[in-house]
Amino acid sequence: MAINYPNGISKKYQKETPTQKKKQHSFSNRGMSFEELINQSNLYYLSKEIAVVHKKPTPVQIVHVNYPKRSAAVITEAYFKEASTTDYNGIYKGNYLDFEAKETKNKTSFPLHNFHEHQINHMKQCINQQGIVFVLIWFSSLQRCFFLSATHVIDYWENKENKRKSIPLKMIEDCGYEIQLGVAPVVPYLSIIDHYISKGDSIYEK
Amino acid sequence: MAINYPNGISKKYQKETPTQKKKQHSFSNRGMSFEELINQSNLYYLSKEIAVVHKKPTPVQIVHVNYPKRSAAVITEAYFKEASTTDYNGIYKGNYLDFEAKETKNKTSFPLHNFHEHQINHMKQCINQQGIVFVLIWFSSLQRCFFLSATHVIDYWENKENKRKSIPLKMIEDCGYEIQLGVAPVVPYLSIIDHYISKGDSIYEK
Repeated sequence: MAINYPNGISKKYQKETPTQKKKQHSFSNRGMSFEELINQSNLYYLSKEIAVVHKKPTPVQIVHVNYPKRSAAVITEAYFKEASTTDYNGIYKGNYLDFEAKETKNKTSFPLHNFHEHQINHMKQCINQQGIVFVLIWFSSLQRCFFLSATHVIDYWENKENKRKSIPLKMIEDCGYEIQLGVAPVVPYLSIIDHYISKGDSIYEK
Repeated sequence: MAINYPNGISKKYQKETPTQKKKQHSFSNRGMSFEELINQSNLYYLSKEIAVVHKKPTPVQIVHVNYPKRSAAVITEAYFKEASTTDYNGIYKGNYLDFEAKETKNKTSFPLHNFHEHQINHMKQCINQQGIVFVLIWFSSLQRCFFLSATHVIDYWENKENKRKSIPLKMIEDCGYEIQLGVAPVVPYLSIIDHYISKGDSIYEK
């Protein structure tokens, strides 16, 4: 399976040592979004029977469909709808997982306008049901990837009227976990969850 | 909230005793599909903070989108895609739930052509991860609703080349659980799962 990386990630690795040059080759196929990297990682986890996580289809309001003879139905009028949940959910070792994957060009903070009210409510609801709920954040300018539990996002969201409209990188560094991108899977986010499960801890305590 | 029932369900209740006549009123608003009843039930469970279960959006391959000035983007060419998972998933008391809701007019069996290979594989994958995976079947002609664990569907599916192409109602009666439709929620399917959880049993053992 060819592994593709988001724009610019190869630049980082071009500075690395010769032993890492072999890796560089697979980073050359650029242009994938963070979402596509997550999808590839999920495909890897699925193929290895490690976890079952899928991105939900884009919600669309279908208004008109044509049924031409002898060919597939064509949707000729439809509109994008706002998602009522997060984009990803699934199961890992009996645990319900629910998360968003978000990308920002910002270098010092993660803007909260990346979320909408429905998603925040959905994350709260899943936490109440004992789900493992989090956000994967890709700082594309910094080429850094973080795992942040949803409780922190919710805290910032609920204080956003009074305080700030973004989550500072410093706070994400302190309260989240940095994920080093790999080859298979590209974004090994389950390793963070393993860390909690092995200690019998909740991801919400850090 | 108005409760609506699928075509014909009011007929059954018109034969009932006078004490049930009060219920009859809310059954008069006909024309809902089984899927809509499940969606309403999920909405009930969500509003009461009992469980978080959503139907996944219909997967659509978007080919062309127009962006008219000052109005919403219009999808002008798109095609239906085959779903790679089941339609419903979510979380209930820390348990991952995954299921399909299917309707048949058949009176003696449930035809397997209601499923496709991807869905069967997905159900197997979720069982391997310790999910609670099942099918809700509505026999519209009989006005009977059943909860059947996915293992039985998988067994029949895997033998369908050699044997039959449908699951006999008798087997569903023996190995599944009949769900009596109610008012709130309309399809109280979580009660079946409670039954297992309270006994510490797996839904796959019956």
